[in-house]
Amino acid sequence: MKVNGVNYRTIWPDTKNDKIIHIIDQRHLPHKFVIENLKTVQDFETAIRDMHVRGAGLIGATAGFGMYIAALSAPENNMDEYIKESSKKILATRPTAGNLAWAVEKQLLAIAAEQSLEAKIKASFSTACAIADEDAEFCRNIGRHGKTIIEKISRLKPDSVINILTHCNAGWLAFVDYGSATAPIYAAHLAGIKVHVWVDETRPWLQGAKLTAWELKEEGIPHTLIPDNTGGHLMQNGLVDMVIVGTDRTTRTGNVANKIGTYLKAVAAYDNHIPFYVALPSSSFDWNIGDNISDIPIEQRSSDEIKYVSGRTADGGIETVLIAPEETKTANYGFDITPSRLVTGLITERGVVAAREDAILELYPEHK
Amino acid sequence: MKVNGVNYRTIWPDTKNDKIIHIIDQRHLPHKFVIENLKTVQDFETAIRDMHVRGAGLIGATAGFGMYIAALSAPENNMDEYIKESSKKILATRPTAGNLAWAVEKQLLAIAAEQSLEAKIKASFSTACAIADEDAEFCRNIGRHGKTIIEKISRLKPDSVINILTHCNAGWLAFVDYGSATAPIYAAHLAGIKVHVWVDETRPWLQGAKLTAWELKEEGIPHTLIPDNTGGHLMQNGLVDMVIVGTDRTTRTGNVANKIGTYLKAVAAYDNHIPFYVALPSSSFDWNIGDNISDIPIEQRSSDEIKYVSGRTADGGIETVLIAPEETKTANYGFDITPSRLVTGLITERGVVAAREDAILELYPEHK
Repeated sequence: MKVNGVNYRTIWPDTKNDKIIHIIDQRHLPHKFVIENLKTVQDFETAIRDMHVRGAGLIGATAGFGMYIAALSAPENNMDEYIKESSKKILATRPTAGNLAWAVEKQLLAIAAEQSLEAKIKASFSTACAIADEDAEFCRNIGRHGKTIIEKISRLKPDSVINILTHCNAGWLAFVDYGSATAPIYAAHLAGIKVHVWVDETRPWLQGAKLTAWELKEEGIPHTLIPDNTGGHLMQNGLVDMVIVGTDRTTRTGNVANKIGTYLKAVAAYDNHIPFYVALPSSSFDWNIGDNISDIPIEQRSSDEIKYVSGRTADGGIETVLIAPEETKTANYGFDITPSRLVTGLITERGVVAAREDAILELYPEHK
Repeated sequence: MKVNGVNYRTIWPDTKNDKIIHIIDQRHLPHKFVIENLKTVQDFETAIRDMHVRGAGLIGATAGFGMYIAALSAPENNMDEYIKESSKKILATRPTAGNLAWAVEKQLLAIAAEQSLEAKIKASFSTACAIADEDAEFCRNIGRHGKTIIEKISRLKPDSVINILTHCNAGWLAFVDYGSATAPIYAAHLAGIKVHVWVDETRPWLQGAKLTAWELKEEGIPHTLIPDNTGGHLMQNGLVDMVIVGTDRTTRTGNVANKIGTYLKAVAAYDNHIPFYVALPSSSFDWNIGDNISDIPIEQRSSDEIKYVSGRTADGGIETVLIAPEETKTANYGFDITPSRLVTGLITERGVVAAREDAILELYPEHK
């Protein structure tokens, strides 16, 4: 998608030297557009753990390229051990991220299938590229399928702007391209449907304020930034036509783990008869978990993310400020679970489906 | 309530020189505890308008003392005109604050009932003290009644900590003493019941992070600060026993206007069968509004409150930082309406009552 009018992906190998992988260091957005070069396994660990990159699809793609760099850096005499150790390090960076485990597993199989280190490196590079390409392609298809829902709503409200609320950033910055929740919005906009997006700022990390608002601005989509507290009031007053969010992990029965606060929007949408959709590529399904949602680990993050807020000062520097008493205890749960009963539908790369096991498995019979 | 172990109210006349009224300048909290001296009508105008003081009860009490200072400063040869002009200036500071108009009106009547300037000054001083004392007394009674609810829950969970979630600041800082939503918590704590408070940070103004967390800390009440997004997850996981919030205005049929985001907590509490209480002195009832909640004006505030966050820097200064793209449009609704169907009960100075017109009017028959 566009940055200053130029098309980018969120991760790509250098065109001249494929030992260097480029990412957008998203910590600097929206104030500065910074491209970072990743060259070592440790660079990848840092980039994933410290959230230079974030978002299910992009974490998967980054882990994929990280495993390629692991193969590339492996000493000939100890390659299997080195690759295995690297995979563990990469896996440990974000424990809730399903795509991370999936990408590492895929790479371990691809690497194990080859004998020589050279062949392993080659296989892992093409696997990393395939993971990234597939992610982009899946998101493009999510956009295609999700657009049909927006079109239907638009037909019921001719000549009106369709107001879509989203939480966190499930935009292209969270994937390789297009995004999940944003893909239908981008596709509808491209098809000439008038859309307007309510952007939840998404405390504590402010991914909505810092990333989604920036994405939509760069893409020219009308949008309004709101505190996370605001969405319910908008729904009560007929100002939201639909909700589309992403997911970090969705169970085979349609329960949705997503950024903390998603459940509050889902239950409010339900209370106001507003359709609540979850957009996801199939890599975000956890086929091993059904309705026992306590099986989904909920990451708890640092207290500082709540008590300190960083942003740009008047003189252009970046400053971090304390917004609470210094000694105050906090709880920083990363995700919550939206039960399937509150979900109108799942928008996947294969089509739109009800958040029910039978419906999901009809679309993905290979997981029956 | 306590600050550094010493009992304070939020507003009080100087004990040696009652021509000086003290307030806590709340703009500096939680980083600095600043007592400000108000000596002129203009001091009061600034304090109310620029939010050195805020909260329904405290605005009323401040207006009451402001009118006393108006009488005190009135020139003998033009006292009526001066007092009338001063009342207009005070009224103009926060045009939508119900308690402000109520307190000014009360003072104008008390002052008009006396002939000499000396008598007017005396009457306005005792009226100001009475307004403040009544506010404190009402909150104390809210505490007494609300405590019985916490006791009941506590009997069902012997030896367990009772987890109470609150939104925004309806603490003693919003009143003269005790607070509304916090009063039952302070009373329960004093009675030896183990309570723990989940404090919603309350974007965009962060009253929870800046004021409620500070209040509870100074009072020694165990508490945990959370982003506004977190409450739903806590409720789903059995970590919230009850919710208590305040209100800016509650209709005679029990619909509750309160800080934006309150509705989201109410609907989540309902979904999880968690009792949701609203604590209010009777001055917060709007007896003229029933179920036509569009009659309640919802204040829209400045965009800067969302895009800029201020706090303390590492070197102890106060800095304001931009957290979104500079050109991003925002929507900043101050309040939302929680429909009465989601409210378990109202905790008033006269007792706990269902959020239904018949029940409310049984407690307040004078408004039938």
